[in-house]
Amino acid sequence: MSSIFSGAIKLSLFGQSHGEAIGMTLDGFPAGVTLDMAHIRQMLLRRAPGRGEFTSSRQEDDVPEILSGVWKGVTTGQPLTVIFRNQDARPEDYPDMDVPRPGHADYTGHVHYFGHEDYRGGGHFSGRLTAPVVFAGALCGQYLKSRGVTITAHILRLGDVQDDSFLPLLTMENADRLAEMSLPVLRADLVPKMEETIRKAREQGDSVGGTIECRVDGLPAGLGAPFFDSVESVLSHLMFSIPAVKGVSFGEGFGFARLAGSQANDALRMQGDNITFQTNHSGGVQGGITNGMPVVFQCAVRATPSIAMEQQSVSLSRKENAPVAVQGRHDPCILPRALPVVEAMAAIGVMSLWQERAGQEGMQTGEKA
Amino acid sequence: MSSIFSGAIKLSLFGQSHGEAIGMTLDGFPAGVTLDMAHIRQMLLRRAPGRGEFTSSRQEDDVPEILSGVWKGVTTGQPLTVIFRNQDARPEDYPDMDVPRPGHADYTGHVHYFGHEDYRGGGHFSGRLTAPVVFAGALCGQYLKSRGVTITAHILRLGDVQDDSFLPLLTMENADRLAEMSLPVLRADLVPKMEETIRKAREQGDSVGGTIECRVDGLPAGLGAPFFDSVESVLSHLMFSIPAVKGVSFGEGFGFARLAGSQANDALRMQGDNITFQTNHSGGVQGGITNGMPVVFQCAVRATPSIAMEQQSVSLSRKENAPVAVQGRHDPCILPRALPVVEAMAAIGVMSLWQERAGQEGMQTGEKA
Amino acid sequence: MSSIFSGAIKLSLFGQSHGEAIGMTLDGFPAGVTLDMAHIRQMLLRRAPGRGEFTSSRQEDDVPEILSGVWKGVTTGQPLTVIFRNQDARPEDYPDMDVPRPGHADYTGHVHYFGHEDYRGGGHFSGRLTAPVVFAGALCGQYLKSRGVTITAHILRLGDVQDDSFLPLLTMENADRLAEMSLPVLRADLVPKMEETIRKAREQGDSVGGTIECRVDGLPAGLGAPFFDSVESVLSHLMFSIPAVKGVSFGEGFGFARLAGSQANDALRMQGDNITFQTNHSGGVQGGITNGMPVVFQCAVRATPSIAMEQQSVSLSRKENAPVAVQGRHDPCILPRALPVVEAMAAIGVMSLWQERAGQEGMQTGEKA
Amino acid sequence: MSSIFSGAIKLSLFGQSHGEAIGMTLDGFPAGVTLDMAHIRQMLLRRAPGRGEFTSSRQEDDVPEILSGVWKGVTTGQPLTVIFRNQDARPEDYPDMDVPRPGHADYTGHVHYFGHEDYRGGGHFSGRLTAPVVFAGALCGQYLKSRGVTITAHILRLGDVQDDSFLPLLTMENADRLAEMSLPVLRADLVPKMEETIRKAREQGDSVGGTIECRVDGLPAGLGAPFFDSVESVLSHLMFSIPAVKGVSFGEGFGFARLAGSQANDALRMQGDNITFQTNHSGGVQGGITNGMPVVFQCAVRATPSIAMEQQSVSLSRKENAPVAVQGRHDPCILPRALPVVEAMAAIGVMSLWQERAGQEGMQTGEKA
Repeated sequence: MSSIFSGAIKLSLFGQSHGEAIGMTLDGFPAGVTLDMAHIRQMLLRRAPGRGEFTSSRQEDDVPEILSGVWKGVTTGQPLTVIFRNQDARPEDYPDMDVPRPGHADYTGHVHYFGHEDYRGGGHFSGRLTAPVVFAGALCGQYLKSRGVTITAHILRLGDVQDDSFLPLLTMENADRLAEMSLPVLRADLVPKMEETIRKAREQGDSVGGTIECRVDGLPAGLGAPFFDSVESVLSHLMFSIPAVKGVSFGEGFGFARLAGSQANDALRMQGDNITFQTNHSGGVQGGITNGMPVVFQCAVRATPSIAMEQQSVSLSRKENAPVAVQGRHDPCILPRALPVVEAMAAIGVMSLWQERAGQEGMQTGEKA
Repeated sequence: MSSIFSGAIKLSLFGQSHGEAIGMTLDGFPAGVTLDMAHIRQMLLRRAPGRGEFTSSRQEDDVPEILSGVWKGVTTGQPLTVIFRNQDARPEDYPDMDVPRPGHADYTGHVHYFGHEDYRGGGHFSGRLTAPVVFAGALCGQYLKSRGVTITAHILRLGDVQDDSFLPLLTMENADRLAEMSLPVLRADLVPKMEETIRKAREQGDSVGGTIECRVDGLPAGLGAPFFDSVESVLSHLMFSIPAVKGVSFGEGFGFARLAGSQANDALRMQGDNITFQTNHSGGVQGGITNGMPVVFQCAVRATPSIAMEQQSVSLSRKENAPVAVQGRHDPCILPRALPVVEAMAAIGVMSLWQERAGQEGMQTGEKA
Repeated sequence: MSSIFSGAIKLSLFGQSHGEAIGMTLDGFPAGVTLDMAHIRQMLLRRAPGRGEFTSSRQEDDVPEILSGVWKGVTTGQPLTVIFRNQDARPEDYPDMDVPRPGHADYTGHVHYFGHEDYRGGGHFSGRLTAPVVFAGALCGQYLKSRGVTITAHILRLGDVQDDSFLPLLTMENADRLAEMSLPVLRADLVPKMEETIRKAREQGDSVGGTIECRVDGLPAGLGAPFFDSVESVLSHLMFSIPAVKGVSFGEGFGFARLAGSQANDALRMQGDNITFQTNHSGGVQGGITNGMPVVFQCAVRATPSIAMEQQSVSLSRKENAPVAVQGRHDPCILPRALPVVEAMAAIGVMSLWQERAGQEGMQTGEKA
Repeated sequence: MSSIFSGAIKLSLFGQSHGEAIGMTLDGFPAGVTLDMAHIRQMLLRRAPGRGEFTSSRQEDDVPEILSGVWKGVTTGQPLTVIFRNQDARPEDYPDMDVPRPGHADYTGHVHYFGHEDYRGGGHFSGRLTAPVVFAGALCGQYLKSRGVTITAHILRLGDVQDDSFLPLLTMENADRLAEMSLPVLRADLVPKMEETIRKAREQGDSVGGTIECRVDGLPAGLGAPFFDSVESVLSHLMFSIPAVKGVSFGEGFGFARLAGSQANDALRMQGDNITFQTNHSGGVQGGITNGMPVVFQCAVRATPSIAMEQQSVSLSRKENAPVAVQGRHDPCILPRALPVVEAMAAIGVMSLWQERAGQEGMQTGEKA
């Protein structure tokens, strides 16, 4: 039970929303990679609050401070620690934890930490912890890109508005365009509808959820493992670490219920001398192992629990029912800011799978006789 | 990349479908538990092929042989190893691996193991490996039951037939009845429709998928962790180890897209001196930590890829397209047999979370001043 | 391959000697512990350079900055991160890494990190990284003390001067006195001889090594495991993480070669209603598990490789033999400063074993019938 | 707390001395290696009891049964499970566990497993568990040999008889000769003295301990890590898993106390275009990372606690002092049989370090610009 992901690369998260600083240590990242700070900043900016019409107005700037693991702008291969100072903390905005906010981790955190948790602004549970995740993921993404691997996410669904799926697309184009959209979708004509949905939620002091879809292009076949280290196991493990993610599926996912075996199976085909697949219902993973097709998965994202409406809760001290009104600055829709987090987690997971595979291949060389 | 689950308890799986034996080692299970062999056999029987109208006719008997960790019928606390001999292996039923079967791990396993895999009957990827999983899970389930924790699964959806969800039920009744049904559903009137769906698939040489829903009752609040060891991370990690599972969601899962924050939040309520929740949209987990409500999750199960119809594939040796017809004995619908596997994996995950929590509580005693 | 210790509690180390900061994240430490900063500072002071006659004059102050995991002076149970800014870095003191210093990790680090390592002052290999270790260990030690467990180390040997062993002492007294001595030994009359040995080494521009012995009092029987998680495995794993430690032994250690089985076996005896042992040759561990006697172990510490004398090495660029003279500030004898590091690592290891055991006991309650 | 070693390759041990079977699962071993069964049998024979004058007469044959992970004599890359049936179990030889045997794990195991342990013949603590370790190690050793890495152990000390050290030998010759000796030593003239020592111990119903030294030749520089995954940490962790090992040291080990820094430092030298070292005091490891010299380490082995003499202990049931006489078949000196176990554990550890390194190198390729 820790805040450490332990794959072939390891990620340790620390910090509370209103403490001194939040941050992460990325351990096992390759030496010799020149940091593309513009790329990292761009990723951080996509996650940052206070940018657009629909995001919380908390101004943190999210300025990363690199404490270790980088020298002269190049990774040393040693543990890479980055912190973000908490500059704009306004703890007075947050109600006393006597009345836990519904949908938040206030109550479960209170029980889990035996009443000693730093509850201010969600403390260690805060979505703000995803800033260091995005830094780590941006770095992994940069590495993977140099290996021909790209990671792209879009909003598959927002409230009742459903975008097209990545799934039928056997190749990915216009990925850069998506990253630049305020509401990244394949069908640009849906943007006004989605904006309207968010605006309406905000006006009602409410919030709206949806689904994010992500794809990883350029992976070779062979990554992963049959059981507990399957591609799905590793990626879902990471995705469910993102606050608000309540579902993860691969390929057709829950839509598989509607597909007969004959419809769900992806036929193998020769493409020149290479093996490929006619369809990608499986989302690029079979038996827990990549098949060379794009890895496509979906994350269900619940509407952010921070809403302006008064809600019902209890007083921990008085042991009686009590209303709670959540003050502070909140996003009516977290999806746009969650996109780079999903991409970052995917990059971290894929990087770990990739390094595992590199080790297996290194042991194999010359052995096959 | 291993076939080992490493939580507070550890599970190591081994064996190939047509090798000498398959089995598992469960490491870290408490000492002093008298094995309820009737319960274990019952769980194994629910998973076993060859029982009913809709399951494959392979007769394996699934006789577990306990090699270690049990003495005089009681667990010793030492590694508990159980094997199942492969009695009814008929490798001649399986086509030469020159033409990988679509939807199976034949191709990905071939790449992953550099051409050295035992491909017979799926080898290490075979669903048969779930027999030792069920043994381990039955044991964990027995232990949890003695602590007041019960685990129940049903078919939430089969093809187009949709059962009611566990989610609105704040308490669970008739769990035993479900385990006895050939197609466990809440709405018994759906059974004929589901049977018809399976029968139709079988007649067409096809197969059908669906969704399994599982709930864990009796868990206290406080289990889990905020990020990488969240309840969702641990359980999804295990669920995606089950062959054919392609999606995992908690509470409202992908349905959260349709819920506003005000609808999705579960209000806290006093029930006498205890804190409870008015609804359970979150599926018993908030911020990665149990809230004392039933943990409810769903698994998307794809239709089994083994179908009688001829399919398109490639010849690895000739490097050209080639048809493949899958011989052998196959289930038109794997869901009934997958139910105890989902329950077993849930028991293993919950047991691990439980033991982690026991350690935290043990460190806490007397400290709180 | 990481700088993370992964037991029931986890410790992540980061930082380079002349980078921005060094630090650690302690993950899994219990919530609700009020930090005894005086104790922590005292431990840090014992490790710090520049204190006495025999230690390097680098003035770092070692001021810990707590970034997370503590609120109002009390641990929250969340990841606890502490950093130490590198204030007195003088990189100009260190020779260009073209000529690796013998006995240091310059060459092996250069190969390991593919030439991208931060070599300044040893970089991530620097003994300075033991400051965060001491912080973590002081915290664990404080916790363990509240449970009746104390940890004490002394210099067992320095050059040719041999102190008495902890081993025959079935109880520990005057532990506090040891921590206050500049050269902590049981036989105070040896101090002048040891001082003389160090002074002589310094005058010759040389250094001197020795052996540290450590004991853990107050542990109950039952901690540890038969094989890979034996008390010896866990503690030696940690001890060998301390730069300069080249040997770890338990009880009679390498002296066991001289003892017949009849001499080496510790006879069990009743002491009132309790079981104890007549002797403690085994150093409190049998079959990898504590037996309730003091855990006593020894660490061989090599003479610090930083010496003033000119030494032989090679030029990496010119690929030819080349002399090297190590500039900078160095300790002629690292043992006094290594004592609190050994105690700290022991505290971290014991804390982890303790928490594992708490989990096992928690699972057992009520089960024994 | 498990019987699983979790490196880049994983080893799970299971079984009790007088249970159904003992065995191991090796997970992560490369695919495509043809098992050299003659080599494996030879290693097992060196460990087996009942061979020579000085070993216990228990006749087990140690016939390995491969359950999984091998097909047509070649590793599949999938979990490799091997069991050894317990054929010659004679539980009646062992006294009732009411009186724990001094020096054994009877008492600590009893406490650790809350009274539920299988104590027969040491149960899971039995030295017999080293048979599966030797199988796993023989397989790793075979692999490493194909990469130019060889592992050799000898008796460095037996009672008062001290052999020459491997340490000054910069290259290893006659390694095969050592494996064939009944008492493998560098100075063959010491054999009669050692034999006499063992014979004398046996006549007195006593036993004798000593020191084993092991070396690994052919390792490249760069394996390992600075802290918790240092070569010393990994190897000591494994060595202390061997019953009876009570000390582990590298290079000069505890002899470093006698060496000044100027004597202890290994000077770098060019040898043609390659970097080498003039001496090997460090035992091939600096800063936790291999330097390309032979890795040399020593293991202190206590005299086996099973002796014929009557000893003092306690009755657990009567809570009073009680004598105990250990019946059964015992070795007066375990060192000859422990040699292949040390070699096997070394092979497992080096294999794991090697695979980690292969992963790092695979990530590096093409990155260095």
